[in-house]
Amino acid sequence: MDLFNVTSGLNTVFVLFAAALVFFMEAGFAMLEAGFVRSKNSLNIIMKVFIDCCSGLLGYWIIGFGIMYGASKLGFFGSTGFFLSGDLSHLTVLKDLGLPTEVYWLFQAAFAVAVATIISGAVAERMKFIPYMVFSFLATAVIYPVAGHIVWNPDGFMAKLGMLDFAGSAAVHAVGGWASLAAVLVLGPRIGKYKKDGTINALPGHSVPLAALGAFILWFGWFGFNPGSGLNALDANIAHVAVATNLAAAAGGVSSALLTYFRYKKVDASMTLNGALAGLVAITAGCAYVNLPSAVIIGIVAGIIVVYGIEIIDKFRADDPVGAIAVHGICGSFGTIAVGLFAQDGGLFFGGGARLLGVQVLGLLIVSVWAFVTTFAVFKVIKATVGIRVSKEEELEGLDLSEHAMEAYGESDLMKSADIKLSID
Amino acid sequence: MDLFNVTSGLNTVFVLFAAALVFFMEAGFAMLEAGFVRSKNSLNIIMKVFIDCCSGLLGYWIIGFGIMYGASKLGFFGSTGFFLSGDLSHLTVLKDLGLPTEVYWLFQAAFAVAVATIISGAVAERMKFIPYMVFSFLATAVIYPVAGHIVWNPDGFMAKLGMLDFAGSAAVHAVGGWASLAAVLVLGPRIGKYKKDGTINALPGHSVPLAALGAFILWFGWFGFNPGSGLNALDANIAHVAVATNLAAAAGGVSSALLTYFRYKKVDASMTLNGALAGLVAITAGCAYVNLPSAVIIGIVAGIIVVYGIEIIDKFRADDPVGAIAVHGICGSFGTIAVGLFAQDGGLFFGGGARLLGVQVLGLLIVSVWAFVTTFAVFKVIKATVGIRVSKEEELEGLDLSEHAMEAYGESDLMKSADIKLSID
Amino acid sequence: MDLFNVTSGLNTVFVLFAAALVFFMEAGFAMLEAGFVRSKNSLNIIMKVFIDCCSGLLGYWIIGFGIMYGASKLGFFGSTGFFLSGDLSHLTVLKDLGLPTEVYWLFQAAFAVAVATIISGAVAERMKFIPYMVFSFLATAVIYPVAGHIVWNPDGFMAKLGMLDFAGSAAVHAVGGWASLAAVLVLGPRIGKYKKDGTINALPGHSVPLAALGAFILWFGWFGFNPGSGLNALDANIAHVAVATNLAAAAGGVSSALLTYFRYKKVDASMTLNGALAGLVAITAGCAYVNLPSAVIIGIVAGIIVVYGIEIIDKFRADDPVGAIAVHGICGSFGTIAVGLFAQDGGLFFGGGARLLGVQVLGLLIVSVWAFVTTFAVFKVIKATVGIRVSKEEELEGLDLSEHAMEAYGESDLMKSADIKLSID
Repeated sequence: MDLFNVTSGLNTVFVLFAAALVFFMEAGFAMLEAGFVRSKNSLNIIMKVFIDCCSGLLGYWIIGFGIMYGASKLGFFGSTGFFLSGDLSHLTVLKDLGLPTEVYWLFQAAFAVAVATIISGAVAERMKFIPYMVFSFLATAVIYPVAGHIVWNPDGFMAKLGMLDFAGSAAVHAVGGWASLAAVLVLGPRIGKYKKDGTINALPGHSVPLAALGAFILWFGWFGFNPGSGLNALDANIAHVAVATNLAAAAGGVSSALLTYFRYKKVDASMTLNGALAGLVAITAGCAYVNLPSAVIIGIVAGIIVVYGIEIIDKFRADDPVGAIAVHGICGSFGTIAVGLFAQDGGLFFGGGARLLGVQVLGLLIVSVWAFVTTFAVFKVIKATVGIRVSKEEELEGLDLSEHAMEAYGESDLMKSADIKLSID
Repeated sequence: MDLFNVTSGLNTVFVLFAAALVFFMEAGFAMLEAGFVRSKNSLNIIMKVFIDCCSGLLGYWIIGFGIMYGASKLGFFGSTGFFLSGDLSHLTVLKDLGLPTEVYWLFQAAFAVAVATIISGAVAERMKFIPYMVFSFLATAVIYPVAGHIVWNPDGFMAKLGMLDFAGSAAVHAVGGWASLAAVLVLGPRIGKYKKDGTINALPGHSVPLAALGAFILWFGWFGFNPGSGLNALDANIAHVAVATNLAAAAGGVSSALLTYFRYKKVDASMTLNGALAGLVAITAGCAYVNLPSAVIIGIVAGIIVVYGIEIIDKFRADDPVGAIAVHGICGSFGTIAVGLFAQDGGLFFGGGARLLGVQVLGLLIVSVWAFVTTFAVFKVIKATVGIRVSKEEELEGLDLSEHAMEAYGESDLMKSADIKLSID
Repeated sequence: MDLFNVTSGLNTVFVLFAAALVFFMEAGFAMLEAGFVRSKNSLNIIMKVFIDCCSGLLGYWIIGFGIMYGASKLGFFGSTGFFLSGDLSHLTVLKDLGLPTEVYWLFQAAFAVAVATIISGAVAERMKFIPYMVFSFLATAVIYPVAGHIVWNPDGFMAKLGMLDFAGSAAVHAVGGWASLAAVLVLGPRIGKYKKDGTINALPGHSVPLAALGAFILWFGWFGFNPGSGLNALDANIAHVAVATNLAAAAGGVSSALLTYFRYKKVDASMTLNGALAGLVAITAGCAYVNLPSAVIIGIVAGIIVVYGIEIIDKFRADDPVGAIAVHGICGSFGTIAVGLFAQDGGLFFGGGARLLGVQVLGLLIVSVWAFVTTFAVFKVIKATVGIRVSKEEELEGLDLSEHAMEAYGESDLMKSADIKLSID
């Protein structure tokens, strides 16, 4: 048996468990999204998240990782590392940390899957399954990896300019969020969402408890998402990353709760859940670079802008059943920019001048435009060829039946009780 | 980058993941409590648990940690460490273990949040949201930290007397449980629970599967709660702590299941879940100090007393929808005392005499009285000022609608099917 | 305090958290099985899984561990280690890794519980609770430990022949799956499943979202199940084990999804979930021995055979509500044999000849026959004495009411709303 030294082993175990936590976020997304959609589409949305895990891991293995972390071409995409093979010697961090390439891959793969899943929520209740599967594969194999390459590959274009995006407010969340916007614009709103008289129809989700469970699981997963992103168990900053992350989440939840209370005299449940998630998304770029009071401020602001963001997105008739565009797109963007303001080292508010802020904005723009444009194009192509949206009849019937011939809660009354006697003979 | 030595890194990672597990117990509490209440209040109780996480983390950062682990005044409260700053050099364990203060804080903060959440279950289905939020903040910022200071601060009053409460049967569970009793006494029972003719109305929860999921998550979280409490990955006793914890849980579940079977010829589901939780609560003080057969005995006894405890609490008309007083208050108290009986070193049954037993009883009394009295007072003050209980009409309608203008399962029949066509124009 | 060296501490923490993940799979099984059965039996199946945890941990402590890992008699069962005491010096791996016996026990105990739980799914909706509890105890105390002894005890019969079953495709999954088949044959099908005219009645589960949550949790748990099985944080192969596991799961999910799509023009949801689980089960033996492309092939094949397997099992009227026989029995068997084909060192396809393949087949046969025969015998004895199946009336009414006097979703309409007013006086 080949043996590691203790540091290598510790780093491997650290990244392995962090990857497990990030992967488990898929269960969180699935429950959050299922809870926020109608029961007739809840099975379909869960299966879309599940298929992200399946086809996404394969796509990231075959192509995505190579594009993201392979030897860089021009700072925008990689050319080695496909199928986890080929020269990866430029990833000096692996040698420095004694980290096997495979555990590094696993952690990154869980991130890639998350990006596709962010989009699944926005397109819920109307997008066909097989086209979604194709898009999901492309998202984890190409769209996200190019963005990740730009930000995180040691030779990436923005990485070389000094962009700071610790765990991916830009590379993961803004990418997922703005891709969601593009997807939603091509796809159009759900039937019945926007009425002819201009009013907006609330289409309440079928189970807020399920959605809340999803939010809890996502928060839990963030214990791996942010602290694990340093990859280094000996980095003295891990604990700070974890605490900044949690305080921002807490602050986001409180600010959303209080904002909705002051506006409506009721604490809005889904906004409060989204507020904590907004705090998590926003602190993801800066958790390693800002101090704790800054983290709390970032969380508070994220909790406020997510409330208005969801309303504004809705006003523009970009129908996003779960609020993915606001949570990930808007708050991911805010979090990326916030590093330029609050970073202890280089932030505008801490005497660092405007350079870092400019770099952050530039990087954010590049990956956001990339994600928006490529997703828009892929959706347009799918729409023009095999079609992207279920028929009106299927949408009214629900995608669980039309796509899977099955209902989420499919127990017929016949099955429930003694009436089953009737069917025995 | 500042680098740790390997021991520091290992301890940091250990405590970080343990903190994640303890934090995830909030999802367990939320699902357990939601499942055990009626659907019309299930969203509200989940939001109370969620807001515990949010306002609780902030409260513990601003005030709570300083009171609990700051430099001690008289052995009862701390005076440094607010906002995680100030002199904490008396926490020599951090230096000994190479543990960053922030990860220590995170682990402790997850405990603070748990205490507030224990109480949320007992006051379910009738307490107003904003007053709850205020109380939750006070519980994590003051009430629990003083109890924790007494038991766990190196200069705490009971710590200096040699009280043994490894992971908090007293400091966490008895405190949460007896605070719950005080809360319930001020709040009064739910409408319809106790009939005028003296009989008790069962108000069955709306989803035992959800409650069971919560119990599983709580058990899972205890893998962090107890083993993590030693903070030291090199402590050769970690494995023993984990096994004692699991055997006590198992024994509690079996004894509750069999007791209800012998009494009713049916294995009671909610009692069995509570029996395992009772075993976990009871072994939390002693898991590091008792041998495995003792752990099993403690679990068996806890599984029995929780069944009778729930009945007795109900007889006294202290209406506790989820059994929090019996599980946490009674079994936490039993577990604290059991250390005085079963500790390998100092326990009465192992030739240690009565001194430790006396210390345990004294410590238990102090923190229990503190928790009961302060909670009673806070609830009385809230009741006399802004009011603590929803109106009769709101309670009958359900708190989901009255407090959040939303239903947990709010999909109207209109939304479910093709009937939505009707609403398009 | 006794202190470990760093390697011991790291291995202890690694195995502890891995054990937590494996234990949490019980929540996954519970949700998966509850979702796939009818609501009237969903509480009962969850309680069976919960009691597995309780009586199973005790059974494995009292007897099971000694039989499995005690000093070997003839290579088939152990004779020391009961109650975690007695001579265990033959477990040299513990000394080599500096691993405390108790954490090793905890990891193994979580496996033992899983075996019993696999069977719980197959016998769902018709087996009495107390007889199940007796069987569950025997499964974790005797049936599984003998199989585990043969495969994994250093002096086990097959271990000495060089059988390779890294984390238990044979010792855990084939054993659980073929025991399920025996159980189902004695028990007979559910009322209404097979009609007199020869057609098969689908009895759809009551909540696919719950089942999907279970599948996600199981996948998450496999991050501990397979990588933890090496017990050694310094084994440079951990990362490979984790990646092979995840790629096989992904491949299984994709192949099941596409196969059902090509057959039915619909992606079957429960088959896709089972396909990923099939991939996980199949790679469990070989994850440490096969390369990544082989892992993907194993996953693809498992995803295909599970679809046909479920149909074939159904055709033979072995009524298995959750597909446990196909997922665990058939795919566990396939995975065991696949090591003989795909192992980098000794596999038939990699120039290793047929010896390893023969050893794998022999070992698989021995543990499968053992599990089938003993389960069959125990079920026959229970059937002939206290009875094993609920009455026809109880089955029609549902086991939640007949066994627990409680409903999973037991909120009466009276409780839901303002109508409760009627019951106040």
